[in-house]
Amino acid sequence: MKRLDWTAMDSGNRARALDRPGGGEQDGLEAAVRRIFNQVWADGDGALRALTRRFDNVEVADFAVSDAEFAEAEAGLDPVLRAAMIEAIGRLKAWHSAGMGQGFEVQTAPGVACGRLLRPIARVGLYVPAGTAPLPSTALMLGVPAALAGCPQVVLCTPPRADGRADPAVLVAAKLCGMGQVYKLGGAQAIAAMALGTDSVPRCDKLFGPGNRYVTAAKQYAAMMAGGPAIDMPAGPSEVLVIADAGAPPAHVAADLLSQAEHGPDSQVILATDSLALLDAVELEVRRQLAELPRRDIAGKALQHARLFQVANLDEAFALSNDYAPEHLILALREPRAWLDKVQSAGSVFLGDYAPEGLGDYCSGTNHVLPTHGAARAWSGVSVASFQKAISYQEVSQAGLAAIGPCAVVMARAEGLEAHAQSVLRRLEGVA
Amino acid sequence: MKRLDWTAMDSGNRARALDRPGGGEQDGLEAAVRRIFNQVWADGDGALRALTRRFDNVEVADFAVSDAEFAEAEAGLDPVLRAAMIEAIGRLKAWHSAGMGQGFEVQTAPGVACGRLLRPIARVGLYVPAGTAPLPSTALMLGVPAALAGCPQVVLCTPPRADGRADPAVLVAAKLCGMGQVYKLGGAQAIAAMALGTDSVPRCDKLFGPGNRYVTAAKQYAAMMAGGPAIDMPAGPSEVLVIADAGAPPAHVAADLLSQAEHGPDSQVILATDSLALLDAVELEVRRQLAELPRRDIAGKALQHARLFQVANLDEAFALSNDYAPEHLILALREPRAWLDKVQSAGSVFLGDYAPEGLGDYCSGTNHVLPTHGAARAWSGVSVASFQKAISYQEVSQAGLAAIGPCAVVMARAEGLEAHAQSVLRRLEGVA
Repeated sequence: MKRLDWTAMDSGNRARALDRPGGGEQDGLEAAVRRIFNQVWADGDGALRALTRRFDNVEVADFAVSDAEFAEAEAGLDPVLRAAMIEAIGRLKAWHSAGMGQGFEVQTAPGVACGRLLRPIARVGLYVPAGTAPLPSTALMLGVPAALAGCPQVVLCTPPRADGRADPAVLVAAKLCGMGQVYKLGGAQAIAAMALGTDSVPRCDKLFGPGNRYVTAAKQYAAMMAGGPAIDMPAGPSEVLVIADAGAPPAHVAADLLSQAEHGPDSQVILATDSLALLDAVELEVRRQLAELPRRDIAGKALQHARLFQVANLDEAFALSNDYAPEHLILALREPRAWLDKVQSAGSVFLGDYAPEGLGDYCSGTNHVLPTHGAARAWSGVSVASFQKAISYQEVSQAGLAAIGPCAVVMARAEGLEAHAQSVLRRLEGVA
Repeated sequence: MKRLDWTAMDSGNRARALDRPGGGEQDGLEAAVRRIFNQVWADGDGALRALTRRFDNVEVADFAVSDAEFAEAEAGLDPVLRAAMIEAIGRLKAWHSAGMGQGFEVQTAPGVACGRLLRPIARVGLYVPAGTAPLPSTALMLGVPAALAGCPQVVLCTPPRADGRADPAVLVAAKLCGMGQVYKLGGAQAIAAMALGTDSVPRCDKLFGPGNRYVTAAKQYAAMMAGGPAIDMPAGPSEVLVIADAGAPPAHVAADLLSQAEHGPDSQVILATDSLALLDAVELEVRRQLAELPRRDIAGKALQHARLFQVANLDEAFALSNDYAPEHLILALREPRAWLDKVQSAGSVFLGDYAPEGLGDYCSGTNHVLPTHGAARAWSGVSVASFQKAISYQEVSQAGLAAIGPCAVVMARAEGLEAHAQSVLRRLEGVA
């Protein structure tokens, strides 16, 4: 953990202190991903089998999870976990449905009705990581809004285990969200399969979900293909920024920093506080709590590049945070709601001493698929809107054309587009 | 123009008939764009001046449009065009503001308030093509929603003319939308400048607007940069699909096809009709009208790959259209409103015989920056939401934590994330 006095730093040093690592050494990765896409394009399911053999060390005859495998997963799952997932789904549904957009229509001139329709994206592909840590929660975070949007085809890919089966908790999570099309495919080959389509895996219009470097690079590669699928957002390592005042309980703040650090060695952990006493206490607490964690090796590595900023006042802390645009922002403040107005860029905000990030990760109701690496400056977390597209329309009567047509003719001719003008004028002649 | 009997075609032939051209030969383009980005990264404004000299054949000392140049543009512009732009802005404002999203908050459990805030993207960069055909309408289409979103910094780049000045109509359009930061920069170097920032051009969080192949490739390159800007959407050649019944006036349908064809030789023009008589009549009309057009050479080239589909019935036409996902969809039908429900994928829809695409291009109120090349399957046209991001939040009381904390603990432990569980448990101990 590195301590920095924000107030004393100049703007160049501030920018460097908020820099995220990496980004430069993606070239080898892109070439590897390109090869995988070419292979899947050429050989379809055969390529998927070969790649699964190579990367997952397992022979999978049929990628699609069978009814029998779903049933076994259901039967074998801890009922406490199942109940927790059902409980989480309830709150996810409440929040996501409350935030759903609506179509609208407005008369912009007499006889000119302009509106917008929302439509579900027809074929969506979800990726749920597994491997060392299967993430059934991610299946819920993607499955619930996909179901609320009404997407007719929802495909989920998740890597096979060494025994050729999918993680049972992921399967139950999928089923609880109404998904039946689950494929045991991981890595870049899963993304290639959903982007290109094969005999067994349907081609998708948009791809969602987190993943390792290969999955991320594959999603970006797919998004670059002409006519290729859209993606939910660019992905980077997970990150938290905590703004704490003198009244924040150091043990809570430390636990929040550690819960981010345990994600991976490249997790980003930042604290900004106006209290030197709190900063000291948190540093002590982090060391104490770290020793007790099963994933202390991972968390310890992440903490090596953690940054603890001392700021002159909380306004400075919010300026710092808005510059950084964190994925998760915890406001460990006495009046957190009063400070919410200051937040300009963040994925999700946690207000007060009783809102650890873990609640948003699992079951408060908000979505945990959030923009990282500064993407919160321009991107939003996943919501039902991520599974929809808007279609605008205009219905124009004869009178409407007479009212607005001449304006279009003037502008079309100013741009040298006479055929545009004529498409209006020919109709106006008919009207007159 | 190629006639095809849709009903008689098998699925493979149908897919090929709806194929869009190109996409494969982007490699040289990407390398060129990469060089330009590297140059701008290394040399900033010096590189911009050198690239402008090379590509635009003009020496521009100061890229920023001065107050004097704005004033001259205002003074010199045809007042009829100025009035048309003001009229268009009025309807653009009406439609875009009616469609603006709202924040919301919902209690997902007692003591757990979850909501979402909308925030303007802080720094947005707009690109407005010029060259042979300056597009002041595009400045309006981007400037109006940016202003409604309240983006604090709106930057606009547009190529310099041979005399080193910007197109006056584009400047007046920018001013009418409240934009004062206009830079005379075109092509990939304009995108690189807004993506990376230089001494004179601010770095932007999201880039908008159409452009040639270099601009498009540069936007995609920028979107791939780790920590780089978001982009509005992938771009391809403009396209229209007209669904017409026997009652559609052939002269109108032909004019619509031609108004799309005049955009460029790679424009996509498609007709689907259940009336052979209409198909014959439209073909005749297209030839007749084409001869009268100033841009008949361009339109003629685009028409070479136009496709006229005969369908057995209108349901088939809508299935075809939803497969193709056109940027513009014209419903030249007797009861167009009744058919709107069938539209699943399209950028913007034009209902009836009095709604030529030109109205949406300029002044009905809807946005003309729309998804092309099938992107309408997953993307939406530009709206105020394109200039905003959503931030989720959760405020949790002691009671709220007691209510939902245990659920999070179960799920965290199922995923092997003990520090996540501890961040909840340490707080629950305090509560108990």
